[in-house]
Amino acid sequence: MKINSNFDSGNIKVIDCTTASNIQLEINKDTHSDFFQWFHFRLQGAQNQSCKMRILNASEASYPEGYEGYHTAASYDKETWFRVPSTYDGKELVIEHTPEFNSVFYAYFAPYTYEQHLNLVHNAQLSPECELVSIGETVQGRDIDMLIVGEESPEKKKIWMIARQHPGESMAEWFMEGFLGRILDEDDAVSRTLLSKAVFYIVPNMNIDGSILGNLRSNAAGANLNREWAEPKLDYSPEVYHVRNIMDKYGCDLNIDIHGDEALPYNFISSIEGIPSFDDRLKNLLEKFIGSWIASCPDFQDTNGYPKNEPGQANLAICSKHIGERYKCLSLTIEMPFKDNNDLPDPEFGWSPERSILFGESILHPILQVVDQLR
Amino acid sequence: MKINSNFDSGNIKVIDCTTASNIQLEINKDTHSDFFQWFHFRLQGAQNQSCKMRILNASEASYPEGYEGYHTAASYDKETWFRVPSTYDGKELVIEHTPEFNSVFYAYFAPYTYEQHLNLVHNAQLSPECELVSIGETVQGRDIDMLIVGEESPEKKKIWMIARQHPGESMAEWFMEGFLGRILDEDDAVSRTLLSKAVFYIVPNMNIDGSILGNLRSNAAGANLNREWAEPKLDYSPEVYHVRNIMDKYGCDLNIDIHGDEALPYNFISSIEGIPSFDDRLKNLLEKFIGSWIASCPDFQDTNGYPKNEPGQANLAICSKHIGERYKCLSLTIEMPFKDNNDLPDPEFGWSPERSILFGESILHPILQVVDQLR
Amino acid sequence: MKINSNFDSGNIKVIDCTTASNIQLEINKDTHSDFFQWFHFRLQGAQNQSCKMRILNASEASYPEGYEGYHTAASYDKETWFRVPSTYDGKELVIEHTPEFNSVFYAYFAPYTYEQHLNLVHNAQLSPECELVSIGETVQGRDIDMLIVGEESPEKKKIWMIARQHPGESMAEWFMEGFLGRILDEDDAVSRTLLSKAVFYIVPNMNIDGSILGNLRSNAAGANLNREWAEPKLDYSPEVYHVRNIMDKYGCDLNIDIHGDEALPYNFISSIEGIPSFDDRLKNLLEKFIGSWIASCPDFQDTNGYPKNEPGQANLAICSKHIGERYKCLSLTIEMPFKDNNDLPDPEFGWSPERSILFGESILHPILQVVDQLR
Amino acid sequence: MKINSNFDSGNIKVIDCTTASNIQLEINKDTHSDFFQWFHFRLQGAQNQSCKMRILNASEASYPEGYEGYHTAASYDKETWFRVPSTYDGKELVIEHTPEFNSVFYAYFAPYTYEQHLNLVHNAQLSPECELVSIGETVQGRDIDMLIVGEESPEKKKIWMIARQHPGESMAEWFMEGFLGRILDEDDAVSRTLLSKAVFYIVPNMNIDGSILGNLRSNAAGANLNREWAEPKLDYSPEVYHVRNIMDKYGCDLNIDIHGDEALPYNFISSIEGIPSFDDRLKNLLEKFIGSWIASCPDFQDTNGYPKNEPGQANLAICSKHIGERYKCLSLTIEMPFKDNNDLPDPEFGWSPERSILFGESILHPILQVVDQLR
Ligand SMILES: [Ca+2]
Ligand SMILES: [Ca+2]
Ligand SMILES: [Ca+2]
Ligand SMILES: [Ca+2]
Repeated sequence: MKINSNFDSGNIKVIDCTTASNIQLEINKDTHSDFFQWFHFRLQGAQNQSCKMRILNASEASYPEGYEGYHTAASYDKETWFRVPSTYDGKELVIEHTPEFNSVFYAYFAPYTYEQHLNLVHNAQLSPECELVSIGETVQGRDIDMLIVGEESPEKKKIWMIARQHPGESMAEWFMEGFLGRILDEDDAVSRTLLSKAVFYIVPNMNIDGSILGNLRSNAAGANLNREWAEPKLDYSPEVYHVRNIMDKYGCDLNIDIHGDEALPYNFISSIEGIPSFDDRLKNLLEKFIGSWIASCPDFQDTNGYPKNEPGQANLAICSKHIGERYKCLSLTIEMPFKDNNDLPDPEFGWSPERSILFGESILHPILQVVDQLR
Repeated sequence: MKINSNFDSGNIKVIDCTTASNIQLEINKDTHSDFFQWFHFRLQGAQNQSCKMRILNASEASYPEGYEGYHTAASYDKETWFRVPSTYDGKELVIEHTPEFNSVFYAYFAPYTYEQHLNLVHNAQLSPECELVSIGETVQGRDIDMLIVGEESPEKKKIWMIARQHPGESMAEWFMEGFLGRILDEDDAVSRTLLSKAVFYIVPNMNIDGSILGNLRSNAAGANLNREWAEPKLDYSPEVYHVRNIMDKYGCDLNIDIHGDEALPYNFISSIEGIPSFDDRLKNLLEKFIGSWIASCPDFQDTNGYPKNEPGQANLAICSKHIGERYKCLSLTIEMPFKDNNDLPDPEFGWSPERSILFGESILHPILQVVDQLR
Repeated sequence: MKINSNFDSGNIKVIDCTTASNIQLEINKDTHSDFFQWFHFRLQGAQNQSCKMRILNASEASYPEGYEGYHTAASYDKETWFRVPSTYDGKELVIEHTPEFNSVFYAYFAPYTYEQHLNLVHNAQLSPECELVSIGETVQGRDIDMLIVGEESPEKKKIWMIARQHPGESMAEWFMEGFLGRILDEDDAVSRTLLSKAVFYIVPNMNIDGSILGNLRSNAAGANLNREWAEPKLDYSPEVYHVRNIMDKYGCDLNIDIHGDEALPYNFISSIEGIPSFDDRLKNLLEKFIGSWIASCPDFQDTNGYPKNEPGQANLAICSKHIGERYKCLSLTIEMPFKDNNDLPDPEFGWSPERSILFGESILHPILQVVDQLR
Repeated sequence: MKINSNFDSGNIKVIDCTTASNIQLEINKDTHSDFFQWFHFRLQGAQNQSCKMRILNASEASYPEGYEGYHTAASYDKETWFRVPSTYDGKELVIEHTPEFNSVFYAYFAPYTYEQHLNLVHNAQLSPECELVSIGETVQGRDIDMLIVGEESPEKKKIWMIARQHPGESMAEWFMEGFLGRILDEDDAVSRTLLSKAVFYIVPNMNIDGSILGNLRSNAAGANLNREWAEPKLDYSPEVYHVRNIMDKYGCDLNIDIHGDEALPYNFISSIEGIPSFDDRLKNLLEKFIGSWIASCPDFQDTNGYPKNEPGQANLAICSKHIGERYKCLSLTIEMPFKDNNDLPDPEFGWSPERSILFGESILHPILQVVDQLR
């Protein structure tokens, strides 16, 4: 019996792996950072053994409430990710599972690897509507990939969609896979209509290094990218630095930043009520966006979410707030659960890649409702 | 060079097939009926020859205006159906094409065969949400297949969806394939929500005999099923007879009947404005249905369509009118084009199987908007 | 509960279908013929009921010994065909099964429909190596499809492969699907080498009418095509008439005729030992063919099979004998089991479409071994 | 325009990438080693530009003759790898290409990534015939994956198949994918027969670290694994150390080691003629293996290859020689080309993943021929 995490987005520290009924583990901190919560490892040699895996430092994780009511994702083939019963007693996260096969992966959420990312963006560029460009390099020197979807013209709205500033929120890239698959579908009437009105600038993974490193929230330099938008630095937060520069070049009429939330078992939006420029126009746009998404997708709701900022109290270092203020445009943080959507729970799979993909497809509807009023 | 139509939904009469530049054809009348318009045949031995196929009796067809601005569907592999340039001069429909392969199919629209039908309904029954039942036999003794989707309970709305009363309107069954694929998707939030509120009774092909026979509008006895709802007869229109009986057994809160229209290059709804029971409740439901579909699917519109019936002037022998009146419920005829949707034209493929499938998926949205008010 | 067989290759007569435990059936005779053995029907409304289906006239079938040790093929989705326990007591074939779904198909062997046939040949023609031609019409006026694979040139060997003279032997067309898939694979070294040395003339279904009609051995006129090769008649056996004519036009260096055998649970060859022209050359070729196939495919064997004809005693009305004599060439009848290959039994699926496909792929090996000596 | 190689198996050093017509590159040396030859990089921003990429240090590579008559593999989607014209003038390898898309990968051969490896072995373990075990860790601490195929029993032959000791020889893992796909096919008669006679111990990638690092021949410690079999060391060559230990535990009746050869445009075998124990039994086995593979797969040949060792002159540090001597068993090195098989050239794709897969399937034939005589 052995545990390994030496692969894309792997993260675990083995304290003791000698007894199936008492496997002791710890999650490593993010690179140059104190955040930690994401785990991803492979257990071998435990087929048909009743395993109890204890994550000893769970209570010290960044969002220990994220482990309450949470069940761990597992897979035998890296394709189907089901949930296995897990409990959090305020100290440890305990995963109990009797693997049916000799090798099994456990993860905080179904991973989306760099290889999948490269396949995604290169497959997308085959579409005549899509161009793939590198807009700079990450801290560790990887290409930052941006997809431009739609033929550019001045009157078209500029819509930005970015995902995975926080690398452990892998559902954000599953969401992007869904969104891209639909927006590039030449038979889809919504997509065709949107592309006659808007150009999309898409960064499916803002934090490639952190994703590979198995981080929850930090890039390779230890930066929390979603606190870097006020003053991105080329050496510390180049991912934001380059994206913001390109945004300034092309402009922005709508900004959508895709995330996952550790604690709340719902899909929701956090927006720009607290930015100085928030006005009736933006309020109406925001309400229309939210209202039409609620009406069209029961996996989305607006009842549960973060407390809204008081007027003027927004933290302008955060992407959606900063971009909303910078361009006086509608700007949204989308949050998906690590756990499940409690309005439509699925005990077997929880919130999943498949549902994230469909949720990514569903966002075309509210975008279509607001696209004509975005500028 | 030879032409054959001896296969599922084949229909053509060869007058002269000796010269590629002057192939003369006629469309056969529907079984025991004067309707004709649908054609479907296979041309062999004409690879790389410039062929001119003249349908000599086009002007006598049921809807000659259906050939104006129409282009013929063609396929080399029975999977991809593209359009080839066709002209109608008021007398003949002329198809001009230089086939790239030795065998090529031409059809009025991409066919949906009985084999595809059987695959569709049997694949559907594998879903735990779906049951396949035979509710009687057609004139020629084939099973009339009905799918029940969702677990039945009294408080749930009863939603009926039927397609292809007119067998030549094959896009109606492609639509059904799309609808079924989505409603049975266990990850789709719209589908899951709908199935918590409604049960679906689905007849993907009301006119199996006519479909196989290559008819436009009639069943094997010569009946136009969509004029049989007032008094369906077991021997002449058993397909309607059985479905109406089962409807009476289960009840009906919403009825959707899927069709294709030969002439109009748009998707639209024909409804129940002219039935005696049409009232504000039904009017509001209808407007809500139409409005939400327009908003969510640019392939749907309400500007072009049939003239609405004056109050009380509806023909109650027609399915949607009859069922609307019989159950005082919202009841809709959905029409798709044989040609294209002129609001979003696609010169290469016209209105197509792929788009019919997506359109069938899109109808879940307006259903979701009205489901709570259906009774 | 009801039974229907009104579809492609359906065949059953319902005597009594009121009680699940005592369903009484008979097999219909072939069209204009006394042969019968093939059955194919759909049972509905029997989910979770223990069904006993008695085929009352089994002992009068053409090959009652075919029901000894035989188990019936069944499918819920027309894609996966598994076996259900069946017994033959010398009078009746009794099928016992508790269907898991409401609609279930039973067949003597997994069917291969006309629709599959049309898909097969039209998909094949997309290959640059393959041309699809119609060489005449069946009794009922359907196209007889021939595929020419490889670029023709005089020095290349002419290899004929035909299948399904006996329409109930559907495994023969599954075999063809396998063969075609491999010979058209541009990456396969065996295929590429063979196509540099030979041209293939392939008739994947010799008896399309009989296949659709649910016959065991006869075409629509009642002809047993495999007894028609001496004097094929345009009206009675046009399928043989046309193929033999085209053979005369192109020549033949190797002829392979694919069949299924009702009784023997083995794959084997019946050949031309009894034709007048059988000599050492043909004997050596035959032995090499058989030997190399045995060595390369454990699903093939030469221990069990038909008694070999005494010299000069072959029936020259049979395809393989006739063609062997007509062209002094190697000519083979390939037989596959309806039951299973007892050397490698598979209780769950018996001999199956998948295994027939692989067996069709495997025949390229012995062909490659003899191709240089065929003329 | 920019070039990046910071991904799985990437390897290039950019000297100058400012002018499309004069892109200057160098290949980096293997980790802690002087070997170099493998390259793999991504070019962006050069769509529709005529690019000339010069690999300046090609003549100093490990096998400069490997660049003669060689054409570079390229891909826009990481799935289809075609060849682009390349020339070697004795100093530089020059790749000339006008990319059709904005991002394009170039590689010495179509890569097989660690992600693909993990998918391969985990998908394989789902088969009831297959068990996945970790037998130790690489220098960098990754799991060494071994698949055991077939139920173990003493009388069964023990057949070892290992691949990619030299990590740049990615065709070796494509070969393994083909082999595994076939041996696990439950419908394949050859596979079923082999598994009744033998158990397979399969290491699809012997050098995972080196593969990820973009090395040609070395592991992460700089070891050429295929010279380590006499005295493998836990710290320097743990991959060989662990595999040889497990071999000693299970025994070995046939050993097959899969490689690629830079220079020779052929598939061939290098064997054990030079080991002390080489005798008539091994000679006969070897001849039978080679002869039957030639007969069954035209992509294999025995005319071109390495000079055979004189008796007793084999280097027993090499895997196939060492294992042959250690177990007195048939032991083979399989070589595939980086270029093409000149007997069946394919100018568009050269030797390719698809052909490597089919070649891996083809090896079951010669194994079946010798399996009964292996011990
Ligand atoms: Ca976040
Ligand atoms: Ca109609
Ligand atoms: Ca036969
Ligand atoms: Ca090598």
